[in-house]
Amino acid sequence: MSIQTQTLDYRDGDVALEAFVAFNDQTAGPRPVVLIGHQWGGRDGFVEDHARRLAAAGYLGFALDMYGKGVRGNSIEENSALMGPFMEDRKRVRSRMLAALNTACGLPQADATRVAAIGFCFGGLCALDLARSGADVRGVVSFHGLLKPSGLAAHPIGAKVLVLHGADDPLAPMEDVVALRAELDAAGCDWQLHLYGGAKHAFAVPGTNVPDIGAKHHTDAERRSIATCDAFLAEVLG
Amino acid sequence: MSIQTQTLDYRDGDVALEAFVAFNDQTAGPRPVVLIGHQWGGRDGFVEDHARRLAAAGYLGFALDMYGKGVRGNSIEENSALMGPFMEDRKRVRSRMLAALNTACGLPQADATRVAAIGFCFGGLCALDLARSGADVRGVVSFHGLLKPSGLAAHPIGAKVLVLHGADDPLAPMEDVVALRAELDAAGCDWQLHLYGGAKHAFAVPGTNVPDIGAKHHTDAERRSIATCDAFLAEVLG
Repeated sequence: MSIQTQTLDYRDGDVALEAFVAFNDQTAGPRPVVLIGHQWGGRDGFVEDHARRLAAAGYLGFALDMYGKGVRGNSIEENSALMGPFMEDRKRVRSRMLAALNTACGLPQADATRVAAIGFCFGGLCALDLARSGADVRGVVSFHGLLKPSGLAAHPIGAKVLVLHGADDPLAPMEDVVALRAELDAAGCDWQLHLYGGAKHAFAVPGTNVPDIGAKHHTDAERRSIATCDAFLAEVLG
Repeated sequence: MSIQTQTLDYRDGDVALEAFVAFNDQTAGPRPVVLIGHQWGGRDGFVEDHARRLAAAGYLGFALDMYGKGVRGNSIEENSALMGPFMEDRKRVRSRMLAALNTACGLPQADATRVAAIGFCFGGLCALDLARSGADVRGVVSFHGLLKPSGLAAHPIGAKVLVLHGADDPLAPMEDVVALRAELDAAGCDWQLHLYGGAKHAFAVPGTNVPDIGAKHHTDAERRSIATCDAFLAEVLG
């Protein structure tokens, strides 16, 4: 196995973006695509590692960029300032996700008929918003994602949806879970929501411990959520 | 592989009970034990099949008996009449589950230090009540179980708890899910709750279709729940 990685310039309208792409160049033929949505700090090493991990599993891992080439936050305040405008304008989330989808699907290594998206925290919301757009993707996975509805016109959701959620995530409390359940039912999709007792926001991100926002790594929830995601991707992309 | 099966007489006080036991007699040494709780109709072929399946995976499968040797229901009315007294007297549930646990752990094929319990519908409640008793079991799994609290004095729960639940199960609506979450948090246990969109009561029981009580087999939820249960058992009993 030989994992090739590269950065890739692409655009959403006037905004220059930079993805990180990984694939196994020892396998022949087009590969199923997994888009990977980053946390509120921007496209960092964490999602790049997931792209490599997914490449080793046979996928084209595409760590997308919501913010702009080289744009990263380095504090709660900076991250919040970067994410805020997207939370206020969910059309912008949708547009960026569709730009990533179209770019990934156009790559020579990609099988554009077999695409899924996963995402962490803000990236989980981005993955859900891609499903909400009615885009032709087979599945989306949200890890400790923000669950607030987009407020945009509802589309039927053809993607299978898997929400991996910490029961003690203060950024998406049980009211949001109950509301999401109703939204996904109304959209007619195949959905699952796994609730991990005692897990807080960012449970799947090693090293995280930010009591001020209720974010903390949780070893068991990380392991279980990754295993569940892998099985789900095999189901929807296999 | 050679799966041995046998019925086994045991008692809970004055009540004569009959379990169905399965194990692979080609493996040496004591086997981790999985107790299997039946639906409201009594110990039937469905749980016997699960005992065989678990035996093939290396466990001692022990399909327990809540109602009494040979006691089975054959209609909604009969099943309801059998289950009703247990729902009214959760000490009786606890007592029957402990009788099954003690019997299984005393078998020569059993590793009494590695025990889990699973159950379906009423049996899911029984498995949860075993965990609630504070019994020394490593994990319990409820498939579309009834989630109502026992009303008995709370114990810390040492068992890991996995609740596999249909989002459209009218016998355990979201209020019960929310209440269970608070109960399990208070008991300090490692818990997960997987919610399957569109799944009703008895989703894991092939052939079920009883609109009057909101019970219906769901192929995807069955497959996913069994796979999740198997991974959980490997985690807690491995």
